[in-house]
Amino acid sequence: MDPKPQDHQSPSSTPSELRQVLVLRPPPVFAVHEQDFSSKFHILKAYDSPLPTHDFLQAHAQSVKAVLCSGIGPITAEVIHNLPALELVVTASTGVNHIDMAECRRRGITVTNTGDVFSDDVADAAVGLLIDVMRRITSGDRFVRSGRWATSGEYTLGSKLACKRVGIVGLGNIGSRVATRLKAMGCLVSYTSRQEKHTTPFTFYPNILQLAFNSDALVICCALTNETRHIINNKVMMALGKKGIIVNIARGAIINEVELVKCLVEGEIGGAGLDVFENEPNVPKELFELDNVVLLPHRTAFTQESFYNAAQILIGNLEAFFTNKPLLTLVANEF
Amino acid sequence: MDPKPQDHQSPSSTPSELRQVLVLRPPPVFAVHEQDFSSKFHILKAYDSPLPTHDFLQAHAQSVKAVLCSGIGPITAEVIHNLPALELVVTASTGVNHIDMAECRRRGITVTNTGDVFSDDVADAAVGLLIDVMRRITSGDRFVRSGRWATSGEYTLGSKLACKRVGIVGLGNIGSRVATRLKAMGCLVSYTSRQEKHTTPFTFYPNILQLAFNSDALVICCALTNETRHIINNKVMMALGKKGIIVNIARGAIINEVELVKCLVEGEIGGAGLDVFENEPNVPKELFELDNVVLLPHRTAFTQESFYNAAQILIGNLEAFFTNKPLLTLVANEF
Repeated sequence: MDPKPQDHQSPSSTPSELRQVLVLRPPPVFAVHEQDFSSKFHILKAYDSPLPTHDFLQAHAQSVKAVLCSGIGPITAEVIHNLPALELVVTASTGVNHIDMAECRRRGITVTNTGDVFSDDVADAAVGLLIDVMRRITSGDRFVRSGRWATSGEYTLGSKLACKRVGIVGLGNIGSRVATRLKAMGCLVSYTSRQEKHTTPFTFYPNILQLAFNSDALVICCALTNETRHIINNKVMMALGKKGIIVNIARGAIINEVELVKCLVEGEIGGAGLDVFENEPNVPKELFELDNVVLLPHRTAFTQESFYNAAQILIGNLEAFFTNKPLLTLVANEF
Repeated sequence: MDPKPQDHQSPSSTPSELRQVLVLRPPPVFAVHEQDFSSKFHILKAYDSPLPTHDFLQAHAQSVKAVLCSGIGPITAEVIHNLPALELVVTASTGVNHIDMAECRRRGITVTNTGDVFSDDVADAAVGLLIDVMRRITSGDRFVRSGRWATSGEYTLGSKLACKRVGIVGLGNIGSRVATRLKAMGCLVSYTSRQEKHTTPFTFYPNILQLAFNSDALVICCALTNETRHIINNKVMMALGKKGIIVNIARGAIINEVELVKCLVEGEIGGAGLDVFENEPNVPKELFELDNVVLLPHRTAFTQESFYNAAQILIGNLEAFFTNKPLLTLVANEF
C-alpha cells in the first residue's frame, strides 16, 4: 500500500480509507442516504465522536481534504483554520451563506452546492405556502380538527389569488419557477433583482421598497448575502400594507424577524408563510398564537426525489474531486 | 296600491314587500352580504322565525315565488310541495345536488346557480390541498407549533410534484383550471369525463378505474349526480395505490367515505386533502388522528372577492326575475 497524500486518487489503496470526508453535523440528505456515502467514502463523523469538535479536527487536521456540510453545521473561518489540508467544501444546499466564502477564496478552497436540484420543490412549496396563507388551509384544518365546524357558523373569508400583485424578491432559479406557477393562477407577477432581466415578461422594480409598495404579497427567493440581510424590514412591511402577505423560503435573516413578529402581532401586515427563521430551529413563540401564519421547519426542499438527486450530486462532486475530474456544481466565489 | 300577483313586477308598490325571497337557512354568501339583499328584497327568514319550518312555509305559501338556498339548506320535493307559487330557486353554489331538480322540472320551476364565479378559487384551493398533502405543509406547521422542531431530528420526506401523474375526475370549469395550474408545476395531467374533450392536450381515460391505475394522485372536480355518487370506492383506491393521494373539492358523496377512511387508516392510499364530506359538518373522527390528511370545512370557494361577485350574481338573478328580464346563470334542467 502506497498512499500518495499529495494526490486525491490512489487506486491501489482501500478507497474508503483515503477518500476521507469530514462531517461536522449530518446534513439531512446525508442522514437519509448515509449508506450510499459510507460505501464510497470514509466518513469522519465529528458529531459521533466522544472528542470535542476542536480535538476531533486536530486529530484529522493533516489528512482531511473534503468536508460535507449544510446550513445546520456552518463552515466558519475557525473550522477552515483548523483544517490546513482542506481543499473542498461540499454543501448539501443551494445557499452557501453558512460557509465563510471569503476565507475559502483566500485559501483556494473550492465550494460546490446542489445546483438546481431543489428549485422545483422549493418553488412548489413557496406557492403552497402562499395559497395556504391566502386561502387559510392550515387554519381551516385546525378549525375542523378542533371540532369547531359542527358548532360554529364562523365564515372567515380568504383572499383570491387571481389578479393579486405578487412581488418576487430575487428572480433566479427558484424565483423564476415561482413566477411561472403564479402566472398560471392569474397572479400579476413583478420582481426586484440585482439587475433587470430583459428576457422575462414580468415587471421589474429597482428596489424592494417600490416592489413592496406595488405588491399584495412578497415571495422571498434571493440568496442571503451582506446586501440582502434584513432587507425586509419594518419600512418594507409598512409599504406592503395591512393585507400584505410575506412568504419566505430563502433564509430567515433576509427578514428582520423582530420587526416581522411585531408587524404580524400588531396587524401591520396580513399574514406570513415561513419556512425559514433567523435562529433555527428556534421560532418566535408569538407566532404560535397567530392563525394567519404558516410555519414550516425549513422543509421546502424535502422530497424523496430531490434528496435522492441531491445525494447523487454530492457523491458525484466528491467522486470527481477524489479522481481529479471536473466538479459538477462549482459555486463561483468572486468578491 | 295594486299588487298584481300574476306579475313579478309591480313598480307602484313598495318593492321589498312584493319582492319576497324565502331563505330556509342562510347561505354563507347571503350571511356575509345580507345588507345588499335586504335593501332590495323582502327576505323571509324561516331560520329566524319562532314557527316550525312547515308552519312558516304554510304562512307564506301563496306568496313566495323565489327561494334563495345553498347546500346547507336543501330544496327537497317536500319544500317545493309546500310552496305552490314557487317559480325560481336561486342557489348560492355551483352544484345543484341539494335541489330536487326532477321536481323543479315537473313543476316548471327555474333554477339558477352562481355560474363560474367560484371556479378559479376552488381550483387554487385544490392545488393548495395537493401541494399541502404531498409536501406536508399543515403537518409541518403542527410539528413547529408543538415545539418538536427544536428537539426532534425527524426528517419525513414529502413527494415531488414534478412528473407526478395527476388524474382529474371531471374536466369542466374547475377541473380544467386545476389542470392548467398543475401543468405549470410539471405534473403529467390526465382526466376522465363523460366524454373525451378533443380540444385539451391532456390524456383521456374512459373510466375512473383506468384513470386511478395510471395516476399518482386524483383530484375530484365533477358534479355529484346519481352516476358519480360513490364512484371513488375501495376498488378505485386500490388501483390508485399505497402512495396515491386523493383531493376532493367537489362533493363528499362522490367518495365512499367509509371506504376512504378505512383505506387511509390502513395505509392503502398515501393521503388525502378533503374540503367536502358525506355528512357535513360531521367529519369522521378517525381522520383527526392522521398526519397525512388535510381537512377543510367546505371552504374552497370562500374568498372575499368571489363572495362579493357571487352576491352580485344572486341579486342579479333575483332582480331579473322580478323585472321579467333574462336570468344570468340559468341551470339546464333536462333529464
